Amino acid sequence: MGEFELLARVRERLPAAGPRVRVGMGDDAAVTVPGGATATSVDALVEGVHFRRDQGSLAQIGRKALAAALSDLAAMGAEPGEAYVVLGVPPNLDEDGCVELLDGVAELAAASGTTLAGGDVTRAPALTVAITAVGHAPGPELLVTRAGARPGDALVLSGEIGGAAAGLLALERPGAAAGLAAETAERLRDRQLEPRPRLDAGRALARAGATAMIDLSDGLGGDARHLAEESGVGIRIDAGALPLATGVATVAAAAGRDPLQLAVSGGEDYELLAALPTGRLEEATAAVAAAKATLARVGEVVAGRGVEIRLPGGRLLEPAGFDQLG
Amino acid sequence: MGEFELLARVRERLPAAGPRVRVGMGDDAAVTVPGGATATSVDALVEGVHFRRDQGSLAQIGRKALAAALSDLAAMGAEPGEAYVVLGVPPNLDEDGCVELLDGVAELAAASGTTLAGGDVTRAPALTVAITAVGHAPGPELLVTRAGARPGDALVLSGEIGGAAAGLLALERPGAAAGLAAETAERLRDRQLEPRPRLDAGRALARAGATAMIDLSDGLGGDARHLAEESGVGIRIDAGALPLATGVATVAAAAGRDPLQLAVSGGEDYELLAALPTGRLEEATAAVAAAKATLARVGEVVAGRGVEIRLPGGRLLEPAGFDQLG
Repeated sequence: MGEFELLARVRERLPAAGPRVRVGMGDDAAVTVPGGATATSVDALVEGVHFRRDQGSLAQIGRKALAAALSDLAAMGAEPGEAYVVLGVPPNLDEDGCVELLDGVAELAAASGTTLAGGDVTRAPALTVAITAVGHAPGPELLVTRAGARPGDALVLSGEIGGAAAGLLALERPGAAAGLAAETAERLRDRQLEPRPRLDAGRALARAGATAMIDLSDGLGGDARHLAEESGVGIRIDAGALPLATGVATVAAAAGRDPLQLAVSGGEDYELLAALPTGRLEEATAAVAAAKATLARVGEVVAGRGVEIRLPGGRLLEPAGFDQLG
Repeated sequence: MGEFELLARVRERLPAAGPRVRVGMGDDAAVTVPGGATATSVDALVEGVHFRRDQGSLAQIGRKALAAALSDLAAMGAEPGEAYVVLGVPPNLDEDGCVELLDGVAELAAASGTTLAGGDVTRAPALTVAITAVGHAPGPELLVTRAGARPGDALVLSGEIGGAAAGLLALERPGAAAGLAAETAERLRDRQLEPRPRLDAGRALARAGATAMIDLSDGLGGDARHLAEESGVGIRIDAGALPLATGVATVAAAAGRDPLQLAVSGGEDYELLAALPTGRLEEATAAVAAAKATLARVGEVVAGRGVEIRLPGGRLLEPAGFDQLG
């Protein structure tokens, strides 16, 4: 397989570049005229670490890689702009397979208004997809970091959690989903294989005054800790208020796991966790609803340090360890 | 090894961020205020494909990965700005090894005025370093693509070529460098292990009116073809005018290779090849000299298609195939 031939096939399939892009794929570098502020994030998926090729299609792997990178832009409240793709190609993936994967990337790029503006293709021992995503905002003050949460803020969560972890269990042991309607099981597997970045909800939360925001890639327990540490505050989460995806309880029970523990420790839900002045909760909920997502109040920001997840009876939930190379 | 621990160690070692960076490493995304135009390029190095760990230090691998990405910015005439690093960590690399490699990246970043603004660390079967480099210019018209060469332009080349390929031969078969002074052999190995991006020369050429520019990563033959194709022109190179690095002839002879063939087909010299109106040759040569590099006129841009490399006797040199996944 030739790198230039492959890139030529990819280039001819791409939709027109966005208005900020002056030179796209195929030169030494892409040229853009960003204006305002940019948010830039990189995210890598490696076969055998983040995905298995027998659990989903190559196009799904491509879409998930871009979704994970765009989710970081969602957590800043940025508008997606450009993406740059590094593809590591193992000996057992041919040129058609590469094109199928990159078509998956291009599909989500088109759907989200992202221009694929550059890339690099190399041989590698395992299929690797590393994506740099660049988002935009009129000014840096409109982008939401992890660092601005203040004691007294409400803690809010978009959508539902636990679905990606339950979906992974269902993929790994199909018996775990035996008690579910086929459609519910399918939806859980999709949460694992086809995550959707909450781009519109992220911008809605930014406009509604979110003081800090993070996307749930490592799991609620770990990501809440990041937000607390960067903001220099404590976080209290009411486990009873956590919206679990339908079917999580059934899959967790079949796998001998506690559903809340699974939802709080499992990563890859790509929902947004944000802190928000309580006075703006109503506005934020309406704005997120307009972005076709739900918003649940799941806790509060307090003075101090650390994250407490309190079960309905008052007992504390300990999320599983989350500082592992993912 | 924990990802967050490693990132914490890296963050505390970084110098202060550049003026465009408002939020650096450690949030969902970096926040910058670019102004003007940006040039963005990605480049990946994979163990066993692009480097061997027994041929150089981990810091050298880090420096080379950033050098390769910055070289693309040099070829646009951009000022280096920010870099984002994906590190794939194999089981046989510990946290100290990761820090040594990232220190190498950080060292060249500091020397070149680049801010390490973000990254991702993941497990991987082979050591992988993928870097996204972002450069800046006051406006998009000041960045030089591969597409503007016109018939009648002179073709110019910075520095010397063949050194990286000869250095690789010397690393792979130490006997090939036996006829060289120790210092010359060392310099060739450094061309392979420690490439320097021609950032200052690239900006000098852009200001001096370069109509098209590319960096030599695949080899002169292949890279000239890219420039010719993107510009829709032909290129004639006078092989007798090509400046070969000292020692290339000796190493090539010892390895049974033709030195010109080696220099033209061997990649990774990271010199700049540019097209330039002949009336601006003198100004360009002086500007590149001020950037501490030499500039050689090595050919011309002609109407037509394709690349011809003509040997002193009139015979044509055929560069070896270059469209392989690197």
